Amino acid sequence: VESVCISSDLPAVSHTLTALIGNALVHFLLSGIPLRPQWELSTINWHVICSLPKLIDLLDDTVPGIGTYEDFNTIDWVREKSKDRDRHREITNKSKHSTVALLFSISDAFSGWLLMLLIGLMSGALAGGIDIAAHWMTDLKEGVCLNGFWFNHEHCCWASNETTFQERDKCPQWKTWAELMVGVSEGSVNVLNHFMYVSWALLFAFLAVILVRAFAPYACGSGIPEIKTILSGFIIRGYLGKWTLIIKTITLVLAVSSGLSLGKEGPLVHVACCCANILCHFFTKYRRNEAKRREVLSAASAVGVSVAFGAPIGGVLFSLEEVSYYFPLKTLWRSFFAALVAAFTLRSINPFGNSRLVLFYVEFHTPWHLLELIPFVLLGIFGGLWGAFFIHANIAWCRLRKNTRLGHYPVIEVLVVTLLTALLAFPIEYTRMSSSELISELFNDCGLLDSSKLCGYTSNSGSTSGSVNATAANGLGARLAGPGLYTAMWQLALALVFKMLITVATFGIKVTDLDVFLKAKQNIRAQASKHFFFFLISTLGGVTRMTVSLVVIMFELTGGLEYIVPLMAATMTSKWVADALSRESIYEAHIRLNGYPFLEAKEEFRHKTLATDVMRPRQSDPPLSVLTQSGMSVEEVERLIADTTYSGFPVVISQQSQRLVGFVLRRDLVISLENARRHQEGVVSVSAVLFTECDPPASPSAPPAVKLHNILDLSPFTVTVHTPMEIVVDIFRKLGLRQCLVIQNGRLLGIITKKDILKHMAQMANRDPESILFN
Amino acid sequence: VESVCISSDLPAVSHTLTALIGNALVHFLLSGIPLRPQWELSTINWHVICSLPKLIDLLDDTVPGIGTYEDFNTIDWVREKSKDRDRHREITNKSKHSTVALLFSISDAFSGWLLMLLIGLMSGALAGGIDIAAHWMTDLKEGVCLNGFWFNHEHCCWASNETTFQERDKCPQWKTWAELMVGVSEGSVNVLNHFMYVSWALLFAFLAVILVRAFAPYACGSGIPEIKTILSGFIIRGYLGKWTLIIKTITLVLAVSSGLSLGKEGPLVHVACCCANILCHFFTKYRRNEAKRREVLSAASAVGVSVAFGAPIGGVLFSLEEVSYYFPLKTLWRSFFAALVAAFTLRSINPFGNSRLVLFYVEFHTPWHLLELIPFVLLGIFGGLWGAFFIHANIAWCRLRKNTRLGHYPVIEVLVVTLLTALLAFPIEYTRMSSSELISELFNDCGLLDSSKLCGYTSNSGSTSGSVNATAANGLGARLAGPGLYTAMWQLALALVFKMLITVATFGIKVTDLDVFLKAKQNIRAQASKHFFFFLISTLGGVTRMTVSLVVIMFELTGGLEYIVPLMAATMTSKWVADALSRESIYEAHIRLNGYPFLEAKEEFRHKTLATDVMRPRQSDPPLSVLTQSGMSVEEVERLIADTTYSGFPVVISQQSQRLVGFVLRRDLVISLENARRHQEGVVSVSAVLFTECDPPASPSAPPAVKLHNILDLSPFTVTVHTPMEIVVDIFRKLGLRQCLVIQNGRLLGIITKKDILKHMAQMANRDPESILFN
Repeated sequence: VESVCISSDLPAVSHTLTALIGNALVHFLLSGIPLRPQWELSTINWHVICSLPKLIDLLDDTVPGIGTYEDFNTIDWVREKSKDRDRHREITNKSKHSTVALLFSISDAFSGWLLMLLIGLMSGALAGGIDIAAHWMTDLKEGVCLNGFWFNHEHCCWASNETTFQERDKCPQWKTWAELMVGVSEGSVNVLNHFMYVSWALLFAFLAVILVRAFAPYACGSGIPEIKTILSGFIIRGYLGKWTLIIKTITLVLAVSSGLSLGKEGPLVHVACCCANILCHFFTKYRRNEAKRREVLSAASAVGVSVAFGAPIGGVLFSLEEVSYYFPLKTLWRSFFAALVAAFTLRSINPFGNSRLVLFYVEFHTPWHLLELIPFVLLGIFGGLWGAFFIHANIAWCRLRKNTRLGHYPVIEVLVVTLLTALLAFPIEYTRMSSSELISELFNDCGLLDSSKLCGYTSNSGSTSGSVNATAANGLGARLAGPGLYTAMWQLALALVFKMLITVATFGIKVTDLDVFLKAKQNIRAQASKHFFFFLISTLGGVTRMTVSLVVIMFELTGGLEYIVPLMAATMTSKWVADALSRESIYEAHIRLNGYPFLEAKEEFRHKTLATDVMRPRQSDPPLSVLTQSGMSVEEVERLIADTTYSGFPVVISQQSQRLVGFVLRRDLVISLENARRHQEGVVSVSAVLFTECDPPASPSAPPAVKLHNILDLSPFTVTVHTPMEIVVDIFRKLGLRQCLVIQNGRLLGIITKKDILKHMAQMANRDPESILFN
Repeated sequence: VESVCISSDLPAVSHTLTALIGNALVHFLLSGIPLRPQWELSTINWHVICSLPKLIDLLDDTVPGIGTYEDFNTIDWVREKSKDRDRHREITNKSKHSTVALLFSISDAFSGWLLMLLIGLMSGALAGGIDIAAHWMTDLKEGVCLNGFWFNHEHCCWASNETTFQERDKCPQWKTWAELMVGVSEGSVNVLNHFMYVSWALLFAFLAVILVRAFAPYACGSGIPEIKTILSGFIIRGYLGKWTLIIKTITLVLAVSSGLSLGKEGPLVHVACCCANILCHFFTKYRRNEAKRREVLSAASAVGVSVAFGAPIGGVLFSLEEVSYYFPLKTLWRSFFAALVAAFTLRSINPFGNSRLVLFYVEFHTPWHLLELIPFVLLGIFGGLWGAFFIHANIAWCRLRKNTRLGHYPVIEVLVVTLLTALLAFPIEYTRMSSSELISELFNDCGLLDSSKLCGYTSNSGSTSGSVNATAANGLGARLAGPGLYTAMWQLALALVFKMLITVATFGIKVTDLDVFLKAKQNIRAQASKHFFFFLISTLGGVTRMTVSLVVIMFELTGGLEYIVPLMAATMTSKWVADALSRESIYEAHIRLNGYPFLEAKEEFRHKTLATDVMRPRQSDPPLSVLTQSGMSVEEVERLIADTTYSGFPVVISQQSQRLVGFVLRRDLVISLENARRHQEGVVSVSAVLFTECDPPASPSAPPAVKLHNILDLSPFTVTVHTPMEIVVDIFRKLGLRQCLVIQNGRLLGIITKKDILKHMAQMANRDPESILFN
């Protein structure tokens, strides 16, 4: 486990942002929303009535650190949500007394929407920038524009006056590297072009790997499994930090441009989540509350898909169906808003010059026949099988790199893969172009203005069988060795599948590209691309197990309801087939591989075990470590902390009765005791530790007691020993608990943590319970 | 409260169904899925180990009635889901031992999808039938086809050879009533036509009211508030029964045909839910489990919207956003499947002859300008205001009919409204046609083949100001007096809003229908209809507070991504404006008006009260009625039942210790005691009642004890007295509890029921807590 954490300090982030989205907005933000902590202080006097115990004052963070979490730990959703409600109540109460507070209350209510607007703008802008940069750098591998090196091939020739209609792709301003260096444009200099192509690809790939290794190890991979885990309540500090964002953005461009078989769909979700996390820092409401921040991140993942596929509704459904853990209706509305803003921003930037959000906007206008459902369902079956196989092969490969020396040389691995890909990809036009360009080439309707060779207006009787072999080899090579960015090929599954299947499609088209079929070509191409499209969707469905969101994304891509029934039939079939082979999507498989504590919401726990079978301590273990509400000294408590590694301790009335009073977290306890030792006068090792609200009668000579009532959670969740585990799992899932106490007839018997549950589930599924690494 | 319950006996339903969806399928169903109860019996021997207490055997329904609910009560979601998991486990275990059981297990796993398929087919077919019948009967008010009375106007003239291109709407075969009776087709017979039109309308309306009153009082209204309540776990027997379905289907056609300002969108959701509920009877899995059945009903409400608007994705989102309470991912997939099947079925029936799912398919192809956002947002504000006003007026009116004598004469009310509507609607062509025809007229692109007067190919300089007044009066009349079906106008809010706004739109178009503007008309019409459309959407958003689903429905209706950003802007504005005025949608307002126990998931509970403030008994009340696990006699228990009205009793170890053992439901207790008295030998009033698993030592002369361990829930939910109510509300919502016990330091102190929570919430919102009527 890499635990390199990058601290994200506020000024630096604000600096980056200022550059990114303009001075005015950030200044408005920074001035409009005060960051002063005193808003958060509770004003309720806790000592008015002593007989009635009060609930734990979660806002009272006079002792710094209380109420926060350690890295690689799970948050307590209930506690976080309580904190937010307390905060909201505070603001509402204050707003009745002064105008400033009222204004603040209003700005607080709208801050969520403002944040969504900013996330949408920033992600849309970044996605647009990535698209443009990747386009330019992809072309840079082949040549350079004399009018200005920052023009890509298309722009260069558009701007030129010497471009003819027949050969719009060629203009004197655009020089291949061979032309520039040797000066001739004959076919014999192809070797030089090939060499330059490979060199640039290697350079880009090398830069990408080095940047990731040096600055942001978390920037590797698509990030979707980690984001899924984070959304479920896990903490990985720095995973969504500013360094990750910067490096991920740069290396995404480099990796895509290097020609590796990877796409920007998954990483864009990560980039959008980084934006959201960074922007959260400007809003107290979200900065200080892990649960609220996760609502924002859920929306951000919708934004990511929205800009990747140009599908705002699909993005929202992707977030709902695939990544989110807690998705209330409020988040639904906000996600939709943010996704639309992002799509609109991207469209305004217009990176592809076609007024579309994506390069591969596909239009299906021909109606379909009922009989066509049969091939579509067959494609669904094949896609599901392929998806399940892909997940299996991918996980096997990742396990291999994890356990053998293969994973120790990421830089070399990437360079080898890039070399192979570049060497094999250059000779054939269709493998040389980027995936999205190729898809666009395949699906766009042929028109008179279209210079594509596939349309048959220029006839090339090129290499058919040879090139097909090469393409297949390239696809195979890419599949075996992976996208290359440092950890594994799996993480860019989406793009990989796209690219892999392109080889299939290219095959289909090359065959028809003979003169005899020239007349029928147009029709065959439409049929072939339609079936390829369905196969592609089915495979994506088999790999990710998305259904509704996938159909909606494709619906938004193809822009018509015409094909919704066949699409649904194909994706549903694919999901069923893949589910029959293995229950996990690629994301879940990788979450499990990495041992993250993720409680899957989709699958029900079906075993007939009871809470008593799972709770700690077991029968053979020593009794449960508990604190008593009074009667323990500072020294005793400190010894208990030192002797154990538990994250929290139940507090009982007395060791004899074992009647539960509350629960205290280890972190809070350690911080409070340290604080008392340092700042409270007269506290010594024999001082009493009191969790009660009222002082018990003590001798006047005794040293002052340490009162820890304020860190005691008086409402811990409890279940009885007879509670079936299925209900316990349900409670953990739905309420987002970290732990739960087990009682019988009023006596505390044990404790169940999220980790215990995950271990138990692993055991019941005949997996290694020790594979669950984190709390 | 009308509590007329219609029992839905299985054979009759199967009969209806056989007629509806064909013999083969039902026979397959009835033979394929055995209905024998022995599948449900538990095979685990509970008496093997006595020292380890076992969880309550929920499957053990040897005593009939145990585990069921009374009418107008709330279900226990946790218990129902446990029951289903136990059932599933049972089947899985058995499937390992025999092939028949394995086949049954497979058919059980696929029964959910089969059920969805059937619901989709049945709802789609019914919706198609309703569309065709309503179209025909609407035309019947004006005249009849000589070729066959079952042809509507359009079909009659299509089939005729004498129809000319210029006057496609007129053909000799289609006779108005005046032509048929008097024999001339002069303008002077208009009075006779008007008389016939009004008579038919009155007849249809009268039939509709009488049918509803006589056979199915539950068939009144749109049904969405009730369905929302049922989905949240409430039981209203007969609300989704076969009589409701039959009568609702017939009266929906009658009511729409009578020309009242109502539409079929809301009722179609009710019809789809009835279909789902009836079809559930054929599947043991769903018939015997209230929670599973509600999953199916959630999907059915998606189906209803899918056929009403021709928007399958919108339907799923409607179910998710507006009506569903518990919506797991599995339900998402199934809803989508069912919605698609229904849409596809409806499309195959092709009720409108245009290959579209709906009559008012709208196409917007003109691009929009950024500045246009301003009028769109303004329309959103206006729509939100109008929506909030509508809800307010509507609720005020409903309260009036509820509390005064006004509500005592539903038949007369409906007839008066119909008379007024018909009298006023006839003179003007646009009010005479049905709402959907009018919308279709307004939005379809003008073509050479279009005979619509609005397109300007035939010029009529008809009455402008006069007709506008009449139209406005009609709209007003309809609004004040309601749609007519027996209870209230509010229940068909969707349709009403449509019709009301048509008057606005008609106004806008009539003004442009002057010769001077004839050239510019086409453009103005497009602009006017676009803005009308946006106003319509905003109002719908303001009334129902839907956002994402509304945008998606409109997206599917208009068939293009072009207008998604303006649509979103309009609906979001409308929701914000309406929310600022009052928090409730029309459905929630009516749920509250009717006092249903609905725990709103959207709004958070924000008050700082604790469980101790809400729990019963209060400080002044007598102590909590509890049972002890042993030591009580049958007589004592029966006296406790007779003296109290509580739905359940906690079981404690002893009255002194008040340590909680479990919880027993009143209904289960009554049934078990009755059963013991009847069937267990030697049980007398002094017999002991035991909730323990092992018999305590008793004297041999004592009468045999009644053992009730099997009805004891050993894992009741508990919270501590210090638990904030916000957390308690959250637990109730997310887990779907009926009650929760309150303990302090292991001692039972009180109980909180769903009704207590709702009363408390009403109190905190300064409403009458006694308005909550049901448990």
